[in-house]
Amino acid sequence: MFAGLSAFPLTPVTEDGIDEAAFERVVGRLAESGVDSIGALGSTGSYAYLSRRERARATQLAVRNAGSVPVVAGVGAWRTREVLANVEDAQRAGARAVLLAPVTYQPLTDDEVFGLYEEVTANLSVPLVVYDNPATTHVTFGDELHGRVAHLPGVASIKIPAVPADPTEARARVTRLRSVIPATVTIGVSGDAAGANGLLAGCEAWYSAIAGVFPEACRTVMRAAVSGEAERARALSGELDPLWALFARYGSYRVVSAVAVELGLVSESNLPRPVLPLDEEGRRAVVAALDTIKRRSSLISA
Amino acid sequence: MFAGLSAFPLTPVTEDGIDEAAFERVVGRLAESGVDSIGALGSTGSYAYLSRRERARATQLAVRNAGSVPVVAGVGAWRTREVLANVEDAQRAGARAVLLAPVTYQPLTDDEVFGLYEEVTANLSVPLVVYDNPATTHVTFGDELHGRVAHLPGVASIKIPAVPADPTEARARVTRLRSVIPATVTIGVSGDAAGANGLLAGCEAWYSAIAGVFPEACRTVMRAAVSGEAERARALSGELDPLWALFARYGSYRVVSAVAVELGLVSESNLPRPVLPLDEEGRRAVVAALDTIKRRSSLISA
Repeated sequence: MFAGLSAFPLTPVTEDGIDEAAFERVVGRLAESGVDSIGALGSTGSYAYLSRRERARATQLAVRNAGSVPVVAGVGAWRTREVLANVEDAQRAGARAVLLAPVTYQPLTDDEVFGLYEEVTANLSVPLVVYDNPATTHVTFGDELHGRVAHLPGVASIKIPAVPADPTEARARVTRLRSVIPATVTIGVSGDAAGANGLLAGCEAWYSAIAGVFPEACRTVMRAAVSGEAERARALSGELDPLWALFARYGSYRVVSAVAVELGLVSESNLPRPVLPLDEEGRRAVVAALDTIKRRSSLISA
Repeated sequence: MFAGLSAFPLTPVTEDGIDEAAFERVVGRLAESGVDSIGALGSTGSYAYLSRRERARATQLAVRNAGSVPVVAGVGAWRTREVLANVEDAQRAGARAVLLAPVTYQPLTDDEVFGLYEEVTANLSVPLVVYDNPATTHVTFGDELHGRVAHLPGVASIKIPAVPADPTEARARVTRLRSVIPATVTIGVSGDAAGANGLLAGCEAWYSAIAGVFPEACRTVMRAAVSGEAERARALSGELDPLWALFARYGSYRVVSAVAVELGLVSESNLPRPVLPLDEEGRRAVVAALDTIKRRSSLISA
């Protein structure tokens, strides 16, 4: 469950809750594609914007539509009390693991971040994935903190942000992190443009937002990487460059949402305000990027 | 209400809710001290960590104990839907204004920040204070964005972060901001070490966390500043330097909490986990700072 391709579906939201039919479609499609796990309620899954009840419901729906694919559920919240409530709900809904980012309003000390994971893992009956995502949490995990947290009972994996583009630096980053964590804890790369690079640098997992809409394309990249075909894996990832460029410009969150609209998976209004969907120019750029990829690559079928 | 000294009380929390008796004491003490407004549920007031119900209750208690002093209530949340619900509760509870920081999980564009304020002000029957606090929100308000937001109907004031220590730079900062906002919108400084400097630089208000525990001291500094006694105001603020040093080291949030414990206003456990109270060393530093100030200054009575 903590190696291979983990696809993070979006959770299409409405004013009143979740677009349940659309979410079931999105998750069911991932399950059929043969991904190794499904990361419900990640950043792409809008966990931060949903109420406790909506999160519990989304996890139930994800588990119900995931078939035999294990579901990892995001449980992050500003207050430890809320995190523990989300953990309880996720376990009850059948999540096989939880994903926790140290989201914070007041800047937290390392001891406070550690204390959060210590309290949560003490109250868990499923494994936990540490979610290191400074772009949204503004928490910087030094390796010392990673080491302390990764040694807590129940920690199974670390979802790290993009590795450096340079392969030597990427491998050095993964090797350094590996040296401070138990051998049982896997490392998974996120930041989809860095997916192939992260796998080639030694990450066991790819925690992927784009796999939430293009699971087969990601499996193809993944297979090349894990079978050691470094050049081919990088070339395949490069075929998706038009998408990576849009991720850098608009954020993967809005772009994945727009791609899902283009694919007919969700309706146009699927993001929670204050976040806005891409404007007209952005949507045209998404259409153009998909067209370019379809023309030049077999990763996405025309 | 949007000029003078605005004191931001802490909201002592428990596992199950708010320590209501302690909160009433804290607010009642501020009302008696003659502050110009009370900022309930600011950052110091732990708004980010409270449920909707707890926030509504805190605002009710603040209004009930504030006497004739107007209460400004914090309403920020990750999702616009939640902000609007908090606004409704705050108005119903008798808040005379609301305070809104653009807290965000996904990094927001300027248009999204503007859209948030546009939607909220369209649904308000009391004035709004824009809360610019990059240390917690990680949102950077450029002057262009400040100008757009400040022109929305109902915007009455902007709570800005610390002005530069250099008086000329501080004045330039306030003057530049003033040039892009309506004349009816006041500017209030926060970052308590910069309070005197901000007032001397032309801010009409001081939105103060330390005034939540030492309102008289802040009124004394304020009076010197607004009567143009620049040197005296700076000297008085300087008498509180031991506190400003602790704010810089531990964050005002934890320090104000520890000061309130020392003053016997709240019980030791009053912060929401994952935030932890100051450790033994930190608490000793707070006691030492208060002792130093009492010895050297008449701002805080021994």
